[in-house]
Amino acid sequence: MNSTMGPKEIVKEIVAKKDVKHIIFVGCGASKADLYPAKYFLDQNANQLRISHYTANEFNFATPNSVNENAVVISASLGGTTPETVEANAVAKDKGATVISLTRVVDSALTKDADYVIYHGFAENYATKLEKTGYCLQLAVELLNQVEGYEHYEQMMAGFDVIYKLSQESAESARKAAKQFAQRFKDEKVVYVMSSGATHEVAYSSSICLMMEMQWINSGTFHAGEFFHGPFEIVDKDVPFILLMNDGKTRSIDSRALAFLDRFDAKTEVVDALDYGLSAHVDESVVDYFNPFVITAVFRVYAEELSYSREHPLTKRRYMWKLSY
Amino acid sequence: MNSTMGPKEIVKEIVAKKDVKHIIFVGCGASKADLYPAKYFLDQNANQLRISHYTANEFNFATPNSVNENAVVISASLGGTTPETVEANAVAKDKGATVISLTRVVDSALTKDADYVIYHGFAENYATKLEKTGYCLQLAVELLNQVEGYEHYEQMMAGFDVIYKLSQESAESARKAAKQFAQRFKDEKVVYVMSSGATHEVAYSSSICLMMEMQWINSGTFHAGEFFHGPFEIVDKDVPFILLMNDGKTRSIDSRALAFLDRFDAKTEVVDALDYGLSAHVDESVVDYFNPFVITAVFRVYAEELSYSREHPLTKRRYMWKLSY
Repeated sequence: MNSTMGPKEIVKEIVAKKDVKHIIFVGCGASKADLYPAKYFLDQNANQLRISHYTANEFNFATPNSVNENAVVISASLGGTTPETVEANAVAKDKGATVISLTRVVDSALTKDADYVIYHGFAENYATKLEKTGYCLQLAVELLNQVEGYEHYEQMMAGFDVIYKLSQESAESARKAAKQFAQRFKDEKVVYVMSSGATHEVAYSSSICLMMEMQWINSGTFHAGEFFHGPFEIVDKDVPFILLMNDGKTRSIDSRALAFLDRFDAKTEVVDALDYGLSAHVDESVVDYFNPFVITAVFRVYAEELSYSREHPLTKRRYMWKLSY
Repeated sequence: MNSTMGPKEIVKEIVAKKDVKHIIFVGCGASKADLYPAKYFLDQNANQLRISHYTANEFNFATPNSVNENAVVISASLGGTTPETVEANAVAKDKGATVISLTRVVDSALTKDADYVIYHGFAENYATKLEKTGYCLQLAVELLNQVEGYEHYEQMMAGFDVIYKLSQESAESARKAAKQFAQRFKDEKVVYVMSSGATHEVAYSSSICLMMEMQWINSGTFHAGEFFHGPFEIVDKDVPFILLMNDGKTRSIDSRALAFLDRFDAKTEVVDALDYGLSAHVDESVVDYFNPFVITAVFRVYAEELSYSREHPLTKRRYMWKLSY
């Protein structure tokens, strides 16, 4: 297991050794969602690499045929002990795939069957919470560029140079809006969260983790493009929605949902990457892929303020860390 | 536009003309979800074909690079008029992709830019409601078999021979259980729906369409493998969950979720393909892919009974068919 190399060097070593055909992202919960921007980037841009994304136990119990010596499996687990993801690394290794793992805990169980490990921060500040997503996206960019070529590689690299600072500053400037959100939403019984593009699974993790897991608030989530094909019939005056708005190609999808929510007086909270100046800092050709960074950082502040106003710490659990299951 | 050929002949004609590399599934809401078993089948079994699945407006506004002359785009719209999906066909055609569309309405807008159209039933009985899913899965099997080869082709064909009759009979035998479900769940304010494997998006459409759209009941949905990574913290005595249980490789994922729900006295309704004899009729090598048929048919009866007990017709809408949006 090598943990001293960065994304570019890791990919260089892999493509020198093998014919990479399949990129498979594996994780659970928030760590699965954090891999999504990289999956979305490759779905958008790749023409040869095959891309898939699984919750770890589906990967383990219904292992795809493409998990073989031509596959690179990228897995993530914050604490490095998620049993399903640790097992996924063993499954991947057994099938001859190359395994790259992301975790913050040195020598954790996840690292055992990984060929390469990238350690990332988390607790230090809002920016370090984005490193898991960021390293995964960098791996995706390197895989695409080194296997197929990618015309906007330089713009992506310039984006990585600025996105952590911008996200940290965005989070720090969001406190006042977050406090207002917390006061408006603290007594809600059901809160919906939606987005589109690379931010689709930020909405997902905001719903299943920040709302359901960390606040015990009922929640549902769906792609903003799907809103008009079922979910919108739930809209009525004061029904609570959180809309994570993207700058870039899918903005019009988010805007259309917002117009509908406003038209029927839903109780809507918007977190908009445009408000934090994303497109002033990142080139238009790649702006789509950096929305999840700014929005994740800002919405973390919203979740913190919600937890304070509800007097329910984000770390409080009924089952996790308490029981075997 | 050709509408006289079946899946096998359509694929034969396409692969004779072009090098098929990308299979892209496009739809909205329930029609997007109905394409998922085919997407799942190819994710599981393909080694060369690239697979993706989009809600139509994301496909339209952030069109992947792989939508080109090597792509087959498979789209679906029940009534054939869903504007986003009609537009997706135009986008796909403009990029040189081959378009196959599924709809029940002859000469509907969806057929305009399609190279091939397969018309399917819907309203006649429970079995015909599965034809959209079935034709799409047949297309996937033919694409895999004719491009790469597929070792369980005969078992899949045998499965298609029996699945409609089994699903119809399953639905007809589910009435009593469905009435009991309806009485138990008719006053619930929030209902969660989950599943795994090929049935993952049956849970999704049951949540966003049958619950939210057609009953105005709050709902959330997630993969049963994700349940333990966030959503399970919402579980408490009498919290309502619907678990769609699969026969096959992912059954242990569903079973683990059930054990947890039972342990904490959640209000759980189980719809289990095993109860309807799926594995007695379909070979073990392909049983995973036929779960969505039996479960969709049975759960339709559950939704009907819920609508009767709530005196809220499944066809009642606030916005759809009434407004422009």
